[in-house]
Amino acid sequence: MAKKNNGKPSLDRWQVPVGGKGFALKDCDPGAKPYGNGDKNGDKARVAELAREIDALQDVFYADGRFKLLVLLQGTDTAGKDGTIRAVFKETSPLGVRTHGWKAPSTLERSHDYLWRIHQQVPAAGEFMIHNRSHYEDVLVPVVNGWIDRKQTAQRYAHINDFERLLCETGTVVMKFMLHISFEEQRGRLQERIDDTAKHWKFSLGDLEVRKQWKEYQQAYENLLRATSTDWAPWTVVPADSKTHRNLMIATLVRDKLKALKLRYPPDDPQLKGLVVQ
Amino acid sequence: MAKKNNGKPSLDRWQVPVGGKGFALKDCDPGAKPYGNGDKNGDKARVAELAREIDALQDVFYADGRFKLLVLLQGTDTAGKDGTIRAVFKETSPLGVRTHGWKAPSTLERSHDYLWRIHQQVPAAGEFMIHNRSHYEDVLVPVVNGWIDRKQTAQRYAHINDFERLLCETGTVVMKFMLHISFEEQRGRLQERIDDTAKHWKFSLGDLEVRKQWKEYQQAYENLLRATSTDWAPWTVVPADSKTHRNLMIATLVRDKLKALKLRYPPDDPQLKGLVVQ
Repeated sequence: MAKKNNGKPSLDRWQVPVGGKGFALKDCDPGAKPYGNGDKNGDKARVAELAREIDALQDVFYADGRFKLLVLLQGTDTAGKDGTIRAVFKETSPLGVRTHGWKAPSTLERSHDYLWRIHQQVPAAGEFMIHNRSHYEDVLVPVVNGWIDRKQTAQRYAHINDFERLLCETGTVVMKFMLHISFEEQRGRLQERIDDTAKHWKFSLGDLEVRKQWKEYQQAYENLLRATSTDWAPWTVVPADSKTHRNLMIATLVRDKLKALKLRYPPDDPQLKGLVVQ
Repeated sequence: MAKKNNGKPSLDRWQVPVGGKGFALKDCDPGAKPYGNGDKNGDKARVAELAREIDALQDVFYADGRFKLLVLLQGTDTAGKDGTIRAVFKETSPLGVRTHGWKAPSTLERSHDYLWRIHQQVPAAGEFMIHNRSHYEDVLVPVVNGWIDRKQTAQRYAHINDFERLLCETGTVVMKFMLHISFEEQRGRLQERIDDTAKHWKFSLGDLEVRKQWKEYQQAYENLLRATSTDWAPWTVVPADSKTHRNLMIATLVRDKLKALKLRYPPDDPQLKGLVVQ
């Protein structure tokens, strides 16, 4: 991918345009490395450095108190959601970052609207919140399985955009990443989970059923990416066949976003000047 | 008010039109009794009868499970929110109805968007939920006190309409009642709370400060009523100088709404036919 903006990779292809115009998932190569420097060890070291920077930024983010950060990770099985969280936020104090992984809804959750449980887990002021999967599962699983029709799906896109606008307009920075791996890469990673008993806990036979619906899921992803990439909560597709590159790209984008907020510690209290503790 | 629709009072003046066109609070007489029959004791007996009907409807509402009911009561101090709940839902089993009274937000609540705490308290399937005050306080108190400007207020109206549409499109019937009393009626009721020591707990000196802003609050009410009366969650102004009439009107509207849902017990399970417990 062409480099511009002082050597920073352009996001042209990876940030989904608002309204989705001209966007197609097939144009996004899961093997691409737009943020890579061609040196895996160098890239890994860079991720570690960025993780430390993000921790330092979280400290002032908390003290600043004007913002909330919601990082949302979507992707098919084995796309690397857990690994991303570990790598990008490994240096961040648990005081300042929380994660929530979304599973199938409980009976109580199902008896409410599908955003009810999500809204309860949005970040508070000064906090980073990572959603491992998200409300976007509600426009994936039911769509692919035909539980909701086109009209209901469009209604949900609108609900989601409205909900994210509320978050944005009340101080939340929403970053949405779709971890994009290839069919072949998934094959290898699933096989690894089967062959290595220490990884069995991450595998279920149902994963193979979902894999059979690969095309349908890719289509449902493309549709939601086009419908829900907004000015206030844009989607970024992250080529994720390379774990190191995936971590590097997300860590870079999170760090850049935090720096752009021009965070600051609250103004000095003049009463503290020269105050001596007795 | 003119009677039509088979003797039922028309809602022309009391239901706020979508978009608020032509609506003014000054046209709503707090002393009117559009649902009254001119006989206070008869009206009281009717309220008691309606409360029993509402309880019976809650039973099938719960079994039916397709809907949720959110009844939202707004009104100035002494407008009769508590009294309405007691009268209209006194026969309803606490299994099927919950109430939540909204006070000033806590530190944790304030560190989230203002709809965060509200969304947590919406009804589950089969449930009645009564909100004693509501998210509309967030377009009253901050507006009257100048904490948010016109643009932020308009933004909040949009958030609220979007939020209520989500609820409606996921099965919630939203009924919004503004209990409308006169300045003079409030004077009498506040005086009663001062004169009767058993009512002191309901009174705070701050109520008199809020009373001084009567006009500003009436204006903020008129604005929000016009901006947030929607097809999916319309506002009804309830003339409330008469407590009996207020109860009668709300009980009638709630009962009518429930009946219009054509609630039904789930279809018979043929396996149960003739089954004998051993």
